Amino acid sequence: MFWTFVDPDRIAGGRVVVDGPAGHHLARVLRVRVGEHGVAVAAGREHQVEVVSADAGQIVATIIRDQPVRGEPTTTVELLQAVLPNPDFDAVIEAGTAVGISRFIAVHADRSVAHPAAARRTRWQSIARSAAEQSHRGQLPEVVGPMRLVDALERITAGSRLLVLDPSADLGIAALADGSSAYSLAVGPEGGWTSDELDLMAKHGGMPANLGPRILRARLAPVIAAAILVQQS
Amino acid sequence: MFWTFVDPDRIAGGRVVVDGPAGHHLARVLRVRVGEHGVAVAAGREHQVEVVSADAGQIVATIIRDQPVRGEPTTTVELLQAVLPNPDFDAVIEAGTAVGISRFIAVHADRSVAHPAAARRTRWQSIARSAAEQSHRGQLPEVVGPMRLVDALERITAGSRLLVLDPSADLGIAALADGSSAYSLAVGPEGGWTSDELDLMAKHGGMPANLGPRILRARLAPVIAAAILVQQS
Repeated sequence: MFWTFVDPDRIAGGRVVVDGPAGHHLARVLRVRVGEHGVAVAAGREHQVEVVSADAGQIVATIIRDQPVRGEPTTTVELLQAVLPNPDFDAVIEAGTAVGISRFIAVHADRSVAHPAAARRTRWQSIARSAAEQSHRGQLPEVVGPMRLVDALERITAGSRLLVLDPSADLGIAALADGSSAYSLAVGPEGGWTSDELDLMAKHGGMPANLGPRILRARLAPVIAAAILVQQS
Repeated sequence: MFWTFVDPDRIAGGRVVVDGPAGHHLARVLRVRVGEHGVAVAAGREHQVEVVSADAGQIVATIIRDQPVRGEPTTTVELLQAVLPNPDFDAVIEAGTAVGISRFIAVHADRSVAHPAAARRTRWQSIARSAAEQSHRGQLPEVVGPMRLVDALERITAGSRLLVLDPSADLGIAALADGSSAYSLAVGPEGGWTSDELDLMAKHGGMPANLGPRILRARLAPVIAAAILVQQS
C-alpha cells in the first residue's frame, strides 16, 4: 500500500500516471509492482488505485474508487518557524507535517544560529512530501522562506489567529485556542524571540502563549503546540 | 545554571551535597565550578543554590532560597507504552518526560517486535533523569517494567481515566479528556494493539481514543497524546 500525491492533470480516463521524481520513488525505491494497491491524492480527492504497469520510473494505475480526502484537519495551522540548526528544522518539518500543519514559513530570527540559503527549501519540501505520504495527509504542506520575520508576517493567512510561543506568557496555548478555524503559530529559535520581535508580532495581533512551565526542545515545541491546536476542533 | 535531583537526606544545615552519579555528572561532565548557580530539587521543593565546593565527583552548594516545584502538571498522565525498537522507546521516554509524563510502564505487547530485558530499565531511567533535568521537571518520572499488559493494568493509578490510543476509535483524545486529574494512556507498538489486548483494556474501563485521521509514528503518538492531556488542565 503506497500513498502518493499527483498533479490533477495526471489523472484521465480512469487512470493515474505517476512519473517524475514521485514515479521514480515508487518504481525504483519502493519497488511498487503490477497488481499492488495504493492511493493517489490529487486536488482534494483520494483515489484508490491498482498498478497496471511499472517501468522506467513511471507507474500507471487504474482508479478503483475515489472519495474526498480524509487526512486534513478541520482547523488549519500554519507555522512561522525560526530556522534551527540541522537536523532540528528537518525534524520539525517531518513531525509537523504528520500532526497536520498546512504551511511552514521559515523565518530568519534575530537569534537564529543557522542561516540556511533559499536552496535549503528544496530539501524541506522533499521532507514534507515524504512525511505527508507516510502520515496519509490529504494535501502537501507548503514550505516557504526562509525570510525575515517582517516579511513572514505579511504572508500569514488573512483572518487567522496569531499565537506566539513564549515561555513567559501568562496563558497556555489550549486556553488561547478559541475555536478559530485557522491559526498562525510563531515559534522562535532555541534562544527565543527578542523583545523587538515580540513587539512586532504584537502589532500584528499576536497573542503570547506558553506550553506550560517545562522547557521543551526547539524541535519538539512547535510540533506539540500545533498538535494541540489541531485537536481543538 | 544546572538542574539536578537529590535525595532529601542530602539537604541539611542550609547546604546540599550532590554525590554519586549525579555528583559525578555535575563535577566531571558539566564541569560545574565554585560560584555557579543551579537548582537542586528534592521532595517537591526547588532549592536555588550556589556551589561552594566541587571536587572528586562531589558538589556542595549553599541554599539561597527554596520554593515548591513549578514544573509539574496539575493533570498527571502515566503512560502504558508497548516496547518499541530502539531508539524509538528511548525517544518516547525523553520527549514524554519533557511534556510531563509522571510514570512510564513498559509493556510487552503481542505485536512488540523488541523484547528488551528488565536490565534495559536502567537505561530508560537514566534517559528520564537527563530529560527531567533539561526540561526542569519538579519530579523524576518513574519507569517500571517491561511487563505483560495484564500486569501493567493492575499497576495503573487507582481512579485514573484509562484512554487507549486506537486509530479506529470514534472519538478524539481531546473529546475524551473530561477534566480528570489523572489519566492512564495506553499506546501500542507500530502494528497496534491486538483485539485481545483491546478487549482486556475495555474490561479495565479503557476508552478508545484516536489522534485524528493522520498516521503518526510510534515514537511521536504517545508524546502528542500525553501533551494534549496535560494541557487540558
